[in-house]
Amino acid sequence: MAAELTAHELIAKHRPTLDQALEAIRTRAYWSPHPEHPKAYGENGSLDAAAGKAAFDALLGGRLDLGQPGTDDWVGGEVSPYGIELGVEYPHADIDVLLAAMKSGQRAWRDAGAEMRAVVCLEILKRISDRTHEFAHAVMHTSGQAFMMAFQAGGPHAQDRGLEAVAYAYVEQVRTPDTAEWTKPQGKRDPLAMNKRFTPVPRGIALVIGCNTFPTWNGYPGLFASLATGNAVLVKPHPRAVLPLALTVQVARQVLAEAGFDPNLVALAAERPGEGIAKTLATRPEIRIIDYTGSTVFGDWLEANARQAQVYTEKAGVNTVIVHSTDNYKGMLSNLAFSLSLYSGQMCTTPQNLLIPRDGIRTEEGPRTFDEVVSDLARSVDGLLGDDARANALLGAIVNPGVKARLEAAAGLGEVALASREIANPEFPDAVVRTPVIVKLDGAKPDDEAAYMSECFGPVSFAVAVDSAADAVELLRRTVREKGAMTVGAYTTDEEVEQAVQEVCLEEAAQLSLNLTGGVYVNQTAAFSDFHGSGGNPAANSALCDGAFVANRFRVVEVRREA
Amino acid sequence: MAAELTAHELIAKHRPTLDQALEAIRTRAYWSPHPEHPKAYGENGSLDAAAGKAAFDALLGGRLDLGQPGTDDWVGGEVSPYGIELGVEYPHADIDVLLAAMKSGQRAWRDAGAEMRAVVCLEILKRISDRTHEFAHAVMHTSGQAFMMAFQAGGPHAQDRGLEAVAYAYVEQVRTPDTAEWTKPQGKRDPLAMNKRFTPVPRGIALVIGCNTFPTWNGYPGLFASLATGNAVLVKPHPRAVLPLALTVQVARQVLAEAGFDPNLVALAAERPGEGIAKTLATRPEIRIIDYTGSTVFGDWLEANARQAQVYTEKAGVNTVIVHSTDNYKGMLSNLAFSLSLYSGQMCTTPQNLLIPRDGIRTEEGPRTFDEVVSDLARSVDGLLGDDARANALLGAIVNPGVKARLEAAAGLGEVALASREIANPEFPDAVVRTPVIVKLDGAKPDDEAAYMSECFGPVSFAVAVDSAADAVELLRRTVREKGAMTVGAYTTDEEVEQAVQEVCLEEAAQLSLNLTGGVYVNQTAAFSDFHGSGGNPAANSALCDGAFVANRFRVVEVRREA
Repeated sequence: MAAELTAHELIAKHRPTLDQALEAIRTRAYWSPHPEHPKAYGENGSLDAAAGKAAFDALLGGRLDLGQPGTDDWVGGEVSPYGIELGVEYPHADIDVLLAAMKSGQRAWRDAGAEMRAVVCLEILKRISDRTHEFAHAVMHTSGQAFMMAFQAGGPHAQDRGLEAVAYAYVEQVRTPDTAEWTKPQGKRDPLAMNKRFTPVPRGIALVIGCNTFPTWNGYPGLFASLATGNAVLVKPHPRAVLPLALTVQVARQVLAEAGFDPNLVALAAERPGEGIAKTLATRPEIRIIDYTGSTVFGDWLEANARQAQVYTEKAGVNTVIVHSTDNYKGMLSNLAFSLSLYSGQMCTTPQNLLIPRDGIRTEEGPRTFDEVVSDLARSVDGLLGDDARANALLGAIVNPGVKARLEAAAGLGEVALASREIANPEFPDAVVRTPVIVKLDGAKPDDEAAYMSECFGPVSFAVAVDSAADAVELLRRTVREKGAMTVGAYTTDEEVEQAVQEVCLEEAAQLSLNLTGGVYVNQTAAFSDFHGSGGNPAANSALCDGAFVANRFRVVEVRREA
Repeated sequence: MAAELTAHELIAKHRPTLDQALEAIRTRAYWSPHPEHPKAYGENGSLDAAAGKAAFDALLGGRLDLGQPGTDDWVGGEVSPYGIELGVEYPHADIDVLLAAMKSGQRAWRDAGAEMRAVVCLEILKRISDRTHEFAHAVMHTSGQAFMMAFQAGGPHAQDRGLEAVAYAYVEQVRTPDTAEWTKPQGKRDPLAMNKRFTPVPRGIALVIGCNTFPTWNGYPGLFASLATGNAVLVKPHPRAVLPLALTVQVARQVLAEAGFDPNLVALAAERPGEGIAKTLATRPEIRIIDYTGSTVFGDWLEANARQAQVYTEKAGVNTVIVHSTDNYKGMLSNLAFSLSLYSGQMCTTPQNLLIPRDGIRTEEGPRTFDEVVSDLARSVDGLLGDDARANALLGAIVNPGVKARLEAAAGLGEVALASREIANPEFPDAVVRTPVIVKLDGAKPDDEAAYMSECFGPVSFAVAVDSAADAVELLRRTVREKGAMTVGAYTTDEEVEQAVQEVCLEEAAQLSLNLTGGVYVNQTAAFSDFHGSGGNPAANSALCDGAFVANRFRVVEVRREA
């Protein structure tokens, strides 16, 4: 059967975008081909808001048949953090049958070469982009993100991260030429002459283990990096966030088939409640690459046990913001308030520990005591979330009972500077919506250390009193070294303090945002420009996205012969 | 104190070479700045043969004081495979003191940037190159390589591999710009604008664990890749092959100091007999990168236990040559004979298993039976090594008693097609020089499988009778998959067989040489063009050299602030 999508068509359609992505990762200037505004969709085949919502609604209570081999059962049971039961059923696989089937298409996918694989990946991303409104609802009702965030972070931003991974994967594979002629002079004798052919070859089958909070954003980099480097990809979603990745797999299988490849190069591994198949899959000999986002405990387990695979993990960290001095006090407070509130602090990048000198800070409005800074920040959060509609749009819903329990327990850890409030969601009355809590702790008290030196994932932050800027810097160093950090923030107008914070971040490999007072937040990174994590501290063993993230997903085989 | 070597001078001197190396790894055409011919040395500050020999002789029986902190003793005791005692003493380190000292210079080395680090590395390589004659004797009298091989493989070829690693390290670090201006449109509102700074930061201290047979060739890639990416490097040589790496460390320390950096960025960890410090060092928290060449047992131990480090291993494999058919029978035989004889088969790339159909092979001179092929090959080896002077120049000496014992035991494994002979070395009467043994085995006999499916490092090869070309291809696949391979060779004039062998090599990630009959041998790879190992089968987890070999030796830290 002739492919419906030819290489020629795909390359003509997507090569310009690939080239722009390659240029973007080189300059790291702003770029994205995926519109952020919901109203940008609805033309050229993309679904508008109403069509996207209708498409999502049509999925509910149905069976998502991906046509996968070895399907031995149907599983489901997702309940939205907004309270509705999705009722979607997914294929449950006989793993022996599915893994065997995933191998059959690998040779053709390998032989297609780096450029063809890249443009097939770009076609998959384009189809996903066209359905961004539909995916937004799927992300919203699995992660608990508010609609606008689910739309942007789960849509264009996730697609950007996927495309970025494709760009890195492509450039890494074409660093070595397809062929070389090698001629070595031998003095008066004839030169030695060899013809060499170099082929990027995949590792095997890659496993993507998805997370609850950012199924697409955290899932796409590994998925597309592995696929673009010639591997087959098995997607094991979080049991509470299957739908966005199941739809992704569906699109990928469709595009692969249309381009003449085996759709089983991408497959879904949904599981029964409590089945815990990630451990089983992760140690199968066929699985040679694993991408994981989630708890430190399981990430460490994967690194220690899935020894047959290249393992890329993003685990937990303790993110710190040092508040030392500022020349824009209001800007600092509102920027921080937004960071603490966005998606109820359920981002791996949300600040947890705010280190503030117990003697207070300098501002352009004069000095502020520790207590004043904390209460001003509490007031700023209150102001930001004072209107219920805006609070709902910013906070989203608490993703699972574990986060809610931690939030409730946090009030017992110290003096509560800002209490968490319930917010009613008129559209989804069962949604659990809570404002963040801020708890005061003392950096010098050993009892408090247990709290601020542990990750407390969710809308909980600690205002930690420290003795001095130097004390803050040392606590930052210790926190990053021992617990890891996805982000570090600092506010200071003092050149020496800034240098000291920078030096800690360079030495402990943490990504630093300095003096943010406007519309960019410490917990947000932009694909093609910002690195997400560093891969150099305990929070993650890899960064999104760099050469190291893609270079070991394939190997280069050389075949040489005399010329 | 002002540096004697300024950045300006070093860049002016070495940037053109770096640029040529960058171009060479891109095209993979022949290139080397390091002359292979001994007579090319003696001008422009390089030592000629006599001066190099004199410099080596002056080292014997002396103390190599590297000026390292924490030196608590002096250790030595190398005995050349050629029989002479080197009598050189090296510093033994108090590891706590030495590791602490190695950290002090890291910040300045990091801040110097990728280009400065690269040219400092090139200056180190240049000084080593100038002393190639001296190094050649040091390599000869530790590895047992014959002089010419020690000269070339231990000199220019090792320097090439070091330079190649520097080139990869440099290009990997400058893929991300130093700074970026990021401006994101916000419709009618002001755009978001950020200034970003990106800094490559080292992992920490890198450990190079050297091997007995190729101290410089296998040591330089890891050493220079780590140093060029900003790490300090601790070199732990094999106790029988300290001198070449101790001289390397000495040169590196001298150049670093002259360029204004802390010489302790490179240090030596020599050990007492039986001290076994590699295990202790490998699990120290300060050690964040390990490069190792040696046994599978210890390589696997490192991968499993040195979890705080990035571990790059080259271990053992079982290298196969399939002999199916040829249109240049004599060329094939002489090429194979050379490969089996060079350095007494003590290369990780030497063929071990020659798979030959039991029904014989086709040649341009007509069919040859299995027995004829084996006896013709034996005759070819005999002819190559018939003259004692040539035999000594090719074979070198047996590196250690373990290899000799294996060689002697091999004759008991099957029918001996070519017996090993002792060769007298008139210059070094105590040298143990032996010609290779070829033993016939039957691929269908389970008893024989234990022999040919294990690595028998040294001048031992097995002529394994197989049922068919397909049988050979399947045995090749199984051998690479289960035991790993640094090299694969094949002789065939049959397009289908060639395709089948290629497909196995692509699927199992093995480097393939086809139909070599001239002056290029399966066990030799050329830097800047050939990959050494693939990193995709059990023989090695990395290849020399590619992006994956360097990309994870550093991380990139971003500092961003509002524009």
